[in-house]
Amino acid sequence: MKLFNYFRSSASFRVRIALQLKGLPYEYVPVHLVKGEQCAPAYTSLVGDALVPMLDVDGAHLTQSMAIIEYLDETHPQPALMPADALGRARVRALAQTVACEIHPINNLRVLKYLSRDLGVDEDAKNTWYRHWVRLGLEAFERQLQQPATGRFCHGDTPTLADCCLVPQIFNGQRFKVNFEGLDRTMAVFEACMALEAFQRAQPSQCPDAEA
Amino acid sequence: MKLFNYFRSSASFRVRIALQLKGLPYEYVPVHLVKGEQCAPAYTSLVGDALVPMLDVDGAHLTQSMAIIEYLDETHPQPALMPADALGRARVRALAQTVACEIHPINNLRVLKYLSRDLGVDEDAKNTWYRHWVRLGLEAFERQLQQPATGRFCHGDTPTLADCCLVPQIFNGQRFKVNFEGLDRTMAVFEACMALEAFQRAQPSQCPDAEA
Repeated sequence: MKLFNYFRSSASFRVRIALQLKGLPYEYVPVHLVKGEQCAPAYTSLVGDALVPMLDVDGAHLTQSMAIIEYLDETHPQPALMPADALGRARVRALAQTVACEIHPINNLRVLKYLSRDLGVDEDAKNTWYRHWVRLGLEAFERQLQQPATGRFCHGDTPTLADCCLVPQIFNGQRFKVNFEGLDRTMAVFEACMALEAFQRAQPSQCPDAEA
Repeated sequence: MKLFNYFRSSASFRVRIALQLKGLPYEYVPVHLVKGEQCAPAYTSLVGDALVPMLDVDGAHLTQSMAIIEYLDETHPQPALMPADALGRARVRALAQTVACEIHPINNLRVLKYLSRDLGVDEDAKNTWYRHWVRLGLEAFERQLQQPATGRFCHGDTPTLADCCLVPQIFNGQRFKVNFEGLDRTMAVFEACMALEAFQRAQPSQCPDAEA
């Protein structure tokens, strides 16, 4: 398998975590988002959406991080990243989507660029925007973690798709100095994740294309 | 089952389509987003993320439209809204997420409100923002539909989760006068969907809380 990704991309980070948790070897192919390499014809000829990550599995080009992780879980079931019961799966997917549909899209690189370049939003207002949506989303995440199904991790005592999505969002929030106060359950899960070697190995600073 | 939703919410519309395709009866509970009813304590005490839709299944409160639809598909397998093979499921989820993670979140009501109220963006620039992201996302969607797995619908010849996500986005784009030129495959799938009674019944104008 080849993972086309960028060290700082949250969506890429999610898939790296899943690959590490499953112990699956892969070739790391860097795509430099800030340099716009995702828009080069060599890449867009492979990937319809011109986004990272893309996982090449024997010539099939899988896109969208949550879809990739569910594919990995279906084809390499152990250790499981999804609960065995339908209600549990619904909860884990909802938690993952709270990050991937409610927080991250509003704050990714291309949206922030549009704010600056097309709407003339200054640096301060852009950072306020960023922090607003991350904080709002994580407060919703925290309320969902009040449910009894939460364990050491988002759902029970082993990592799931939800943890794969949460951790990169916290990393991203830390870069933008988001206020995490009062998000006790969320941050406890984050700490539990980061105590695991799989999460450590997947983090941006450990990537071949990492920059200071 | 009770569906807490809003006639004009794209994410609610996705779930209504799935319920209609499955032929599942449900109670319609309107939550008026423009009036802010999703933030009232009566609702937030049930729903951690203060968003619609929420599906109440025997007291379990399911959130996030794609998670709800996968739950419905797992618990009521016929007609199937997901392909039988892992690669097919990955493709359908990626198409759904192209709408639900790349287009819709940047354009929903709360984001548009923030642009106007907090950033002072005028009506014209807000509409340009809206059309930019929908068009960009649908162009990516169109490129993905060039794959041979596309049939009358997004994936093969029966509707899937991907169609449940696409159709509400087209409705939404029509309201904001998005230019759909050149998106031939996408619009052909949209027409095929709208020829089905299930999609017609789920549309905003057919909802009990519909407004002109």
